[in-house]
Amino acid sequence: MTTFATIDDLAAACRSLPDGDETAAAAVRARQEQLTKPPGSLGELESLVAWLARWQGHPMPRLDRVEVLVFAGNHGVVAQGVSPYPSAVTVQMVANFAHGGAAINQLAKNAGAALRVIPLDLDHPTADFSVAPAMDEAEFLAAVNAGYDAVSADADLIALGEMGIGNTTAAAALAGAIFGGGGERWAGRGTGIDDVGLARKRAVIDAALALHAGVLANPLRAAMTLGGRELAAILGATLAGRFKKVPVLLDGFVCTAAAAPLAAAAAGGLDHARVAHCSAENGHRALVAALGQTPLLDLGMRLGEASGAAVAIPILRAALACHTGMATFAEAGVAGKA
Amino acid sequence: MTTFATIDDLAAACRSLPDGDETAAAAVRARQEQLTKPPGSLGELESLVAWLARWQGHPMPRLDRVEVLVFAGNHGVVAQGVSPYPSAVTVQMVANFAHGGAAINQLAKNAGAALRVIPLDLDHPTADFSVAPAMDEAEFLAAVNAGYDAVSADADLIALGEMGIGNTTAAAALAGAIFGGGGERWAGRGTGIDDVGLARKRAVIDAALALHAGVLANPLRAAMTLGGRELAAILGATLAGRFKKVPVLLDGFVCTAAAAPLAAAAAGGLDHARVAHCSAENGHRALVAALGQTPLLDLGMRLGEASGAAVAIPILRAALACHTGMATFAEAGVAGKA
Repeated sequence: MTTFATIDDLAAACRSLPDGDETAAAAVRARQEQLTKPPGSLGELESLVAWLARWQGHPMPRLDRVEVLVFAGNHGVVAQGVSPYPSAVTVQMVANFAHGGAAINQLAKNAGAALRVIPLDLDHPTADFSVAPAMDEAEFLAAVNAGYDAVSADADLIALGEMGIGNTTAAAALAGAIFGGGGERWAGRGTGIDDVGLARKRAVIDAALALHAGVLANPLRAAMTLGGRELAAILGATLAGRFKKVPVLLDGFVCTAAAAPLAAAAAGGLDHARVAHCSAENGHRALVAALGQTPLLDLGMRLGEASGAAVAIPILRAALACHTGMATFAEAGVAGKA
Repeated sequence: MTTFATIDDLAAACRSLPDGDETAAAAVRARQEQLTKPPGSLGELESLVAWLARWQGHPMPRLDRVEVLVFAGNHGVVAQGVSPYPSAVTVQMVANFAHGGAAINQLAKNAGAALRVIPLDLDHPTADFSVAPAMDEAEFLAAVNAGYDAVSADADLIALGEMGIGNTTAAAALAGAIFGGGGERWAGRGTGIDDVGLARKRAVIDAALALHAGVLANPLRAAMTLGGRELAAILGATLAGRFKKVPVLLDGFVCTAAAAPLAAAAAGGLDHARVAHCSAENGHRALVAALGQTPLLDLGMRLGEASGAAVAIPILRAALACHTGMATFAEAGVAGKA
């Protein structure tokens, strides 16, 4: 049942990513030229449909089955005082998800998407990465595989997100490992830490980057050493999206950082994934830019839980509705450009 | 049956705009502090709910009845060669709306909104404003009143838009009259005019601003002199939203320019209206900034038809769904901030 038995298996998968279907994308563009609108006037709505077609591998893409996957994990680094909330909140919020009371419950429903929450060994936080590697290879791969296996090949789109007290610290460290810079560049207030806590958080990140410097040039080992289980699962789910032909919407800072090792491990490794929104969390704008992405939304959100990705789903539905439902100039009897 | 019999009646209405309901907005903010998320972490989603509450005048706003109103008009200035499409396309697109084949049909349906298209005397284009005032007072008020009367007091939100070959020229001239600058600052390619046409369009605008300089200091007279019927109707509908407690989503460049006289005529005159998206049409970003607005979306759209406003409706639904559906910390048994 194990998808990836070793980190070398995982690395091999990253080196053999399937390409997108350019024929399907070209078919979308050809149809768009015929629809009753000035060419290109739907902007990003047009390119989103081509993107869906490319990565679903269908000239007329679908959004019949959209899933929001939220992975949850706990973090030993919380012992360093990097969050204003206790680790217990992670499992409490997972219960809130189960009872339908969280933001993502409302947002998934609003988007016509199914919500699945996958808690990852919450009773056993990862090791405090400021003193030891967060995970060993077996723990890391178990989380990656959980994420990979959570993606159904029958899905038309997945939106990924996370819950995990302390995980903006892990995400900031991982971003630093991959793109350079340390706590100053990548750490923000997360759920709302104060100035003293933020300084502590930054120092913890800098110390961890120094401690583990020897292994961080390898992006997968960086994810194992600094990231939490939910970040590893997001990496696995993002990889699964590529192999299973399911385009991916990434949520905010933590989710983007979690997927970033795939971009570092393979050129174009995140081409099938779109950053759905720009988080208000410090560092996300720089991270998105480093990945060459343009977020669909910029609404000052910083909640996680896939909340920003879920808000973006109706935009993809809007794009697809135009593509499938609009009349052509010929069908509508509308005159073209002079 | 006439809502505004004279332009002085209209000006008087602009001087007596009702204030928003700050008590309702404060009730929204108080509830948001209790919901299971870090304070402020839903960003703009939180402020949008407070905005709906303020202008609906209810502490728990609703989006049960959302209407998209698209006004259509024809423009004498098309004779100057300012558009690559013939005026006949306006009525052809109105027919396309009626048959369900346009982008806005798909987008309104995607947003759970009712679509109403209001053609305004399409057989009689306004006068070519580069040689004479576009409308006389009776024509202008008829269009303003048509827009005002199109807004139902039972609606919870309206999204406004337009269709009218040549109307980016009228909108650019109106923006120039209100905020200064001429064709260079405000005119863009509209539906896709070439370089020669764009230079011609800019010159037409500059000539019109010079010709009518004597009346343009009055924003309502500027709308009468330069704007088309659909722009006047948007002005009337936006004004109606304020009096009838129906918050307004404005679409792109033409729609924003059409509503701008209300901001010029009364301080805070557009506080109950949000620019839904930033159009790719040249001039919209500057116009939005001049109005002190931050668009909800920036997706490179430039179609009109209320298309950008319709794409933003699900964001408001997402915001309201969180506000009404989320559990409080107490209800969910989630620990608060340490």
